[in-house]
Formats: sequence, C-alpha cells, structure tokens
Amino acid sequence: MTFPSNFFAAVPHHLPDELFTTLLDTAQVRIERIVSHGHASPEAFWYDQDQHEWVLVLKGPARLRFEDGEIEMKPGDFVNIPAHKKHRVEWTTPDEPTIWLAVHCGEPS
Amino acid sequence: MTFPSNFFAAVPHHLPDELFTTLLDTAQVRIERIVSHGHASPEAFWYDQDQHEWVLVLKGPARLRFEDGEIEMKPGDFVNIPAHKKHRVEWTTPDEPTIWLAVHCGEPS
Repeated sequence: MTFPSNFFAAVPHHLPDELFTTLLDTAQVRIERIVSHGHASPEAFWYDQDQHEWVLVLKGPARLRFEDGEIEMKPGDFVNIPAHKKHRVEWTTPDEPTIWLAVHCGEPS
Repeated sequence: MTFPSNFFAAVPHHLPDELFTTLLDTAQVRIERIVSHGHASPEAFWYDQDQHEWVLVLKGPARLRFEDGEIEMKPGDFVNIPAHKKHRVEWTTPDEPTIWLAVHCGEPS
C-alpha cells in the first residue's frame, strides 16, 4: 500500500541553517524541499549549477538575485533557473519560514 | 531578466473538464499543474504510465486509488507513483478546486 507524506510536516521552529530535504532522487530528477528562515546566500556567493533548477515558493516571501537583476517571490511563484545561470538567495523573511520546492534536472530537449 | 509565474493563477471558477497545464518540459522531466473540481477518472479507467509520477496536492482534498487500496490526500500530501503502478483519481471535492503538482520522469537510478 502507498501512503502519502506531507510537504509541510516537520518544519522546525528554530532553524540555525537552511534545511534541505530530498523527497525524490532518480537518475533524471531530484526533488527537494528547502526551508529558509531569514537566511540568504553568503555574501558574494553565487550558485552556478550543472543542472537546471525549477523552483516554486510555497510559503513566505523571498528574493532571488541573478546577475541581471532581482526578483521578488511570494507563495505560488515559480521560475526555471537554467543550468549555469548564476543566482543567489538575496533575502528570506525572518518572520516565518520560507518553504521552497526545487526540481533539479539535466539538459533540456 | 527572469520573471516568476504563479502556480495558483488562472484557476477557472467553472471547469467542465480537468485542466492540465505544462509548466516545464525537458528531455528528463515534465512538470504539470492539474486542476480538478469534482472530477474523477472515468469508471473502470486506470492510468498505467511509462513514466514515474511524483504528485503533490496543493489545494483541496482528493482520493487516489491503487489496485491495493485507496489514499486520502490533503494539501501538502505527496506520493511517488512508480511507472506502471495502476492508479486512478477516485474523488475530488466539488466544493473547491483541487490543485495538483505532478512531476513526470523516467526510470529511477
């Protein structure tokens, strides 16, 4: 029998570091929950990833920064970040956890 | 510049058929939003898919049926449905839209 897990379960109240939880890991795709709480990427740090990352914010506001500008994200907002497009988490609110769903996958067709 | 889209945007009030919207389509993965509103799979119909489907309910209750039993799903609940595991949507509430995020992908490692 199959039982569901819950995406919003086990969100800690106190979160010294961002929390990364892998929900599915296959040869083609990795699905991850990320919980931030006032966190941002370290100063001058940029993610520069081999895989594409499709990211959906499901709770809390956040700001993502790219080399060509910054975007505000609120619950429901999603973007696809192509491989090697440099990006960083510029800001997440300290008022509540920001919860992201990230889908990492390889080269597009 | 990158601009986010919103997952909860453009949900019709009146929905004669389930609404399938592809949000990302690559060689490895297809991400889809599905909106149901009182819909169920046709009687005696089973999905029997070549790809795995990881599905997350983000709004509204639903029931999925497998050959070995049925599961209730509420917002936040997710399951991975392996390729060729037969399943059907047994029920979605007529009271509000049920919104699913589905990630279709190939063989696991």
